[in-house]
Amino acid sequence: MIAAFDDAALIQAMLDFEAALAAAQADEGLLPRTAVQAIAAACRVDRFDIPALVAAGRRSGTLAVPLVKELTRLVAQADAEGATVVHWGSTSQDVQDSAMVLVTRTALRLLDGELATLCAHLLALGEAHLATPVLARTLLQPAQVTGFGFKLAGWLAPLVRARARLRASAADALQLQLGGAVGTLAVMGERGPAVARRMAQALGLRTPSAAWHTQRDEWVRLGLDVALLTGSLGKIGADLALMAQGEVGELAEPSDGGRGGSSAMPHKRNPVSALITLAAATRTPQHAATLLAAMGQQHERGLGNWQAELAEWPTLFLSAHGALRALNEAFAGLKVDTDRMRVNIDALQGLVAAEALSIRLAGAIGRPAAHAAVEAMTRTAVAEQRHLRDVAHAAIAADPALAHLDPGELDAIFDPVAATASARRLASQRFEQLRADLAALDDKES
Amino acid sequence: MIAAFDDAALIQAMLDFEAALAAAQADEGLLPRTAVQAIAAACRVDRFDIPALVAAGRRSGTLAVPLVKELTRLVAQADAEGATVVHWGSTSQDVQDSAMVLVTRTALRLLDGELATLCAHLLALGEAHLATPVLARTLLQPAQVTGFGFKLAGWLAPLVRARARLRASAADALQLQLGGAVGTLAVMGERGPAVARRMAQALGLRTPSAAWHTQRDEWVRLGLDVALLTGSLGKIGADLALMAQGEVGELAEPSDGGRGGSSAMPHKRNPVSALITLAAATRTPQHAATLLAAMGQQHERGLGNWQAELAEWPTLFLSAHGALRALNEAFAGLKVDTDRMRVNIDALQGLVAAEALSIRLAGAIGRPAAHAAVEAMTRTAVAEQRHLRDVAHAAIAADPALAHLDPGELDAIFDPVAATASARRLASQRFEQLRADLAALDDKES
Amino acid sequence: MIAAFDDAALIQAMLDFEAALAAAQADEGLLPRTAVQAIAAACRVDRFDIPALVAAGRRSGTLAVPLVKELTRLVAQADAEGATVVHWGSTSQDVQDSAMVLVTRTALRLLDGELATLCAHLLALGEAHLATPVLARTLLQPAQVTGFGFKLAGWLAPLVRARARLRASAADALQLQLGGAVGTLAVMGERGPAVARRMAQALGLRTPSAAWHTQRDEWVRLGLDVALLTGSLGKIGADLALMAQGEVGELAEPSDGGRGGSSAMPHKRNPVSALITLAAATRTPQHAATLLAAMGQQHERGLGNWQAELAEWPTLFLSAHGALRALNEAFAGLKVDTDRMRVNIDALQGLVAAEALSIRLAGAIGRPAAHAAVEAMTRTAVAEQRHLRDVAHAAIAADPALAHLDPGELDAIFDPVAATASARRLASQRFEQLRADLAALDDKES
Amino acid sequence: MIAAFDDAALIQAMLDFEAALAAAQADEGLLPRTAVQAIAAACRVDRFDIPALVAAGRRSGTLAVPLVKELTRLVAQADAEGATVVHWGSTSQDVQDSAMVLVTRTALRLLDGELATLCAHLLALGEAHLATPVLARTLLQPAQVTGFGFKLAGWLAPLVRARARLRASAADALQLQLGGAVGTLAVMGERGPAVARRMAQALGLRTPSAAWHTQRDEWVRLGLDVALLTGSLGKIGADLALMAQGEVGELAEPSDGGRGGSSAMPHKRNPVSALITLAAATRTPQHAATLLAAMGQQHERGLGNWQAELAEWPTLFLSAHGALRALNEAFAGLKVDTDRMRVNIDALQGLVAAEALSIRLAGAIGRPAAHAAVEAMTRTAVAEQRHLRDVAHAAIAADPALAHLDPGELDAIFDPVAATASARRLASQRFEQLRADLAALDDKES
Repeated sequence: MIAAFDDAALIQAMLDFEAALAAAQADEGLLPRTAVQAIAAACRVDRFDIPALVAAGRRSGTLAVPLVKELTRLVAQADAEGATVVHWGSTSQDVQDSAMVLVTRTALRLLDGELATLCAHLLALGEAHLATPVLARTLLQPAQVTGFGFKLAGWLAPLVRARARLRASAADALQLQLGGAVGTLAVMGERGPAVARRMAQALGLRTPSAAWHTQRDEWVRLGLDVALLTGSLGKIGADLALMAQGEVGELAEPSDGGRGGSSAMPHKRNPVSALITLAAATRTPQHAATLLAAMGQQHERGLGNWQAELAEWPTLFLSAHGALRALNEAFAGLKVDTDRMRVNIDALQGLVAAEALSIRLAGAIGRPAAHAAVEAMTRTAVAEQRHLRDVAHAAIAADPALAHLDPGELDAIFDPVAATASARRLASQRFEQLRADLAALDDKES
Repeated sequence: MIAAFDDAALIQAMLDFEAALAAAQADEGLLPRTAVQAIAAACRVDRFDIPALVAAGRRSGTLAVPLVKELTRLVAQADAEGATVVHWGSTSQDVQDSAMVLVTRTALRLLDGELATLCAHLLALGEAHLATPVLARTLLQPAQVTGFGFKLAGWLAPLVRARARLRASAADALQLQLGGAVGTLAVMGERGPAVARRMAQALGLRTPSAAWHTQRDEWVRLGLDVALLTGSLGKIGADLALMAQGEVGELAEPSDGGRGGSSAMPHKRNPVSALITLAAATRTPQHAATLLAAMGQQHERGLGNWQAELAEWPTLFLSAHGALRALNEAFAGLKVDTDRMRVNIDALQGLVAAEALSIRLAGAIGRPAAHAAVEAMTRTAVAEQRHLRDVAHAAIAADPALAHLDPGELDAIFDPVAATASARRLASQRFEQLRADLAALDDKES
Repeated sequence: MIAAFDDAALIQAMLDFEAALAAAQADEGLLPRTAVQAIAAACRVDRFDIPALVAAGRRSGTLAVPLVKELTRLVAQADAEGATVVHWGSTSQDVQDSAMVLVTRTALRLLDGELATLCAHLLALGEAHLATPVLARTLLQPAQVTGFGFKLAGWLAPLVRARARLRASAADALQLQLGGAVGTLAVMGERGPAVARRMAQALGLRTPSAAWHTQRDEWVRLGLDVALLTGSLGKIGADLALMAQGEVGELAEPSDGGRGGSSAMPHKRNPVSALITLAAATRTPQHAATLLAAMGQQHERGLGNWQAELAEWPTLFLSAHGALRALNEAFAGLKVDTDRMRVNIDALQGLVAAEALSIRLAGAIGRPAAHAAVEAMTRTAVAEQRHLRDVAHAAIAADPALAHLDPGELDAIFDPVAATASARRLASQRFEQLRADLAALDDKES
Repeated sequence: MIAAFDDAALIQAMLDFEAALAAAQADEGLLPRTAVQAIAAACRVDRFDIPALVAAGRRSGTLAVPLVKELTRLVAQADAEGATVVHWGSTSQDVQDSAMVLVTRTALRLLDGELATLCAHLLALGEAHLATPVLARTLLQPAQVTGFGFKLAGWLAPLVRARARLRASAADALQLQLGGAVGTLAVMGERGPAVARRMAQALGLRTPSAAWHTQRDEWVRLGLDVALLTGSLGKIGADLALMAQGEVGELAEPSDGGRGGSSAMPHKRNPVSALITLAAATRTPQHAATLLAAMGQQHERGLGNWQAELAEWPTLFLSAHGALRALNEAFAGLKVDTDRMRVNIDALQGLVAAEALSIRLAGAIGRPAAHAAVEAMTRTAVAEQRHLRDVAHAAIAADPALAHLDPGELDAIFDPVAATASARRLASQRFEQLRADLAALDDKES
């Protein structure tokens, strides 16, 4: 991903733009063929001094100016007239935006690949753990019993949506930028739109309905969708880190090869994937905000805000990709400690089943009485540090109105696996749907 | 819009949720009909002390807890058993999220209405000014001549996209929230999903594929689309403010009824609509960032981040709506000074046509020679403060190679209206398309 | 705190400004005394229709315009000439900024009071727990043993710094705004600066070195210092929430009066204070960013950005104050479970003392050998699920080079209380210093 | 500035930390001298493979782990025991934070130097233009006449404050980080604080009152002060860009060497310095927000948030420095067009003097009558497009009550230079004060 956005990739994409521009203009009869050949021959990044260009770009506020100057010099060596039509009818922002679109297309492919892998991991793990009881926690407090598979379905679904969303946004956003100095393509006369169509086709980009120099909504939305993905990854990272705490111990990242180890603290296994994911999720909202803050670009091309957007753009993708890779590493070898999950449930002395107990008793003695009875039992359980099941058995035995209740049925209320019934049913249906959604996504790609 | 999100609206929406919950549960045989009637009768906001509820909600960290308590008290006055099933099987976040969805639906309708009006203003103005020359400006410098209609098409297109986008996002995001304590609907056994379907239908919301207590991507995306709209409005506000500067004077907001006036400075007419729009655009990116920053909600229901999202949500809509109304006020009476537009073009002594002149000469003497000739002419024009047209006439007359050029054709190059040809053509096509897009949006609604 | 920033408070502060302006101008001979009396008499908020003013302010983009208009009308009833000098020589932003300064002064007092209380809580708790062992955790993993008092010193110190910082920033930022239309006080001729001095003195504000209409650095810095405080509170909230997790159980917020309780889940006790604090800390960074984003205010008074800053300002204080009050509620009745702290340490089988053991052995057999020996012991302890102390006793007994080590000394290495020695020493010194700092702060105030 | 934060600089700073740690520990008798020498000899960045370290750091989540590993390997070649005490008693965050402090000290020096230069430019320019009339503009509308020197004083003052502020914050924030695994320095026993003192002295840093692993307020505040500086620079950039607009034309950035030029648009001169400054000011608020958002670092060392802060830190300094250099380039050759300033004032037909006229007439006929008379005159001036001065002469001649007014005095009211009187007086005093403040800052440095 770093390579996708590095100087060489960006400059080659700019050169691809220049070559495609010349070719399209020649096809429309605006340039001689000889010029096109000379330009195409010069549009190879290995003919340029990248650090020198970057330094010059920093001085002039845009990479396009020194690049076009140097390209013109190279073309002039082969074809004097060609040199006069380099970049003709185009503006700096045309080439820089289009180049950013081209490298972003590569970046999106990388994201999609990592996303597909992570989805596969979560799907497999989730289906394997449909009936694994685990504590559901709300407001960072133990709440009730759920299924670990159900929890994984919750992590997976937004990622499947993210894949679909990124493709849809990319279909809008990956468009050619070509407007000339002020967006009207005026220099090329009536041939402007045809040149744009040819270029877009040659570069595999969408033909824009108009230059989008200062109307960035489709482009920014793609960036926001990447930020949204990172937000969903951050949620997984947060849960992972919390479940990997020593005192919870339900999950652990793989530790092979000294990963996350500490020599001074042999019991420690740092959750490196969670760390990377959380760092990405902490930074990304602000990078997304800058894209939005830069939207008020003045008139036909903006001053400062366009440049600010450009500068923040790659980081959004680098963060998302880093988090995806980190999570893929974690899930490739994730340790799931189902025993600890059970221990953590048991530590709550059956209080997590109080609501289920109340519902069962209501059938026998009505809701108000059941509610009161269970409140009394839970008070006893808490005060005497006994398991609610034992308190309930005793209470029911002592109450003639309840004495007909089956002790086995009562035990079932407190059985963690039985408590996952709803979660299991729902998760199973969701995985079926999500599997189909993923298959549809994979089909579309091929 | 303030009314859409005020306490009364939100509480009524919460009560609508509670009434619909009871009705759906009765339909599924989980509750007696009598309870439903008692609950429905109590679910009217005028039966509640709103300030007291708000104060109590602040103390307990959620409005749902005191509301359910008070609702239970009211129901108990009519039906003791009904009181035991108020809010049954649901959790605080179910009712609060669903209520926010309901009031957001109202808010979106308001936004769409204002958007439709603004689009209509821009379309009418744009079509009226297809051939009006105005300076295009890049990097806050005069660049070339464009058409004012073309500029308006640039303002309009993102708004048409925003309308479509908000509808699509709303179709995903306006879904019921119903998961019970930990998202599994466990209390309702196998009837949970059916209850959700019935409730969603009754409330006119989408049935969710699962509870989205801590998976906020679809919801946050709706918020981001509102932020994107405000970004596009901010671009209009920026251009409006710049074109209304005293020294530019091309546009002016209406000033009837003392709007934007200043008694001490009689020449001043403050651009109040631009002010409101720019303020909204300055605040919104950060509010959007908070939605993203709050996505890492822990486990089955988050601590602090959900509440942060909830608190920022209405402001996004209030800002967008305020900006839309302000711009509608401005465009309802916008003063377009086409004379000043022409004066500003003329002040540039024809230099904005240098490129067009160069292209024309290239046909006669080749690009390199034409380029050199025009450079010399512009130097002369700048140094002697003459109009480039006059310099060109003199130069051409003096150069035998160019003497055959038609003076009338030369004048045409410097004619601002002629210079809008490309802009006019492109804008005309765009307005046709945008008009069709808007009609399609209006059709869908009805 | 809500009252500090509400419409009535803000409008009264604006009226205080107007009254002080007239008085100072009269003292400088610019106005007749009679006018001052008429103005002062009208400058009482109870003479104004607040909702009507607020609605009118929304229309005109500033509250100042309708307020001055209404004030003028009221004064005119008593003194015709007085009505002509209401607000004379001043501008809307003068009165609104100065009023915001006045209500912010009140807000700062409230913050300082809550801060003082929270500091006192933390100091008392910290000194009581100097020798209480608790797990130190890094990267959300158990690391080593520290003292709970040491941990509390870490929470306390930034709050003491925050108090000092806010006072210093306030001394800069709580200054009068008075510049007239463009900051030059031109209308008042040479008397302008003297009027400003008199007004500042009357209102108890700093006399500004110049109007700060568009130079907001001192003001924004005060806002950033409030954000910084909320950041430090968020750190406490995060730790509190983590230590209150069911599986950790070291701290619990007070639960009297049903605070944070849940009837369906009797074992749950929601950490309401942590919730409020974390929500504040999630929102605040973005509000702070808006202050910074609004700094580029154009020319002599900005368009949109000033208004954006004004709109976000109160939320910063409300968030900080809400978090402070919530934490004060928590710390007033915080339950510290020192047994659970010990249990959590013991669960790590002495591995947290591996480094200390290694150091001790190094004295006997050199670092390299000690390092290797302890690594072997920890591997054994982990593999056989034994306490490292027992493994160490056995290993030492078996190794002639180590046989002379005193078993009692070995046990001391594994004694949690002994392990807090450094933490205790450092914390004790810090509390002494922090107590002195707090005393100095309290002295300065009185 | 790029060099200040590059990998080589950061790694050398980390090595400086390691060398100073060993030296201080030896001075305290904790290590043998021989080890120190071996470590010091290895602590030279040219002995390390930087790209390999950076890649390894990315994998393990921190640069410190692979650096310490490689350093240990190098030391082991010279001294086996030395290798066992590399980094002893310290933790990854100790070395990374301290290294970031060291390179930040360099960065601050660069900022201060550029700031001093910019202050000198503004001071010189301001004093040269004390009496140059220029339009003051509010809400992007022409308001009244002010002095260009007064405007420059407004730009300068926050920069002088920024210099003082950054020094004060740096005095707090440039402190050693040394806490060991959990902040207690436990491994070094009672010698820990003494080691810290020695190290801090050797590195020229402040001795911290405690490790600040998760208490970042002093550090973040330094970052916020840099953001505040960029905010003040953004204000200058905004004004510069607005005054350089073609239609305003009062200022122009230097254009030597093709700077900001455009061959296709010979009239264009892009404001490159404003561009860079505005881009920095657009990005910086969000980077600052990330520092605040990362403050909730858990327990004794945070997971993800510390890493997020670290990643954003350098950009804050790079942005500020880039903006400073750009502005220094602009002000070194700024073109001030005092004729255009006068033209822009004259274009307002004297209406900017309406308030001054009203005040003068009030002396003769009372405020109410004067107010009404001037309103009538301005209406006439606007309607008939005449200069208010001429309208006023005619009106006064026609009104017996005013006929005694001296026509020369009337002309003076409309004289732009005379209108700068207040601005001139205030600016002159401010420059005197600011010059003294700058001298004091320069003294302190030397």
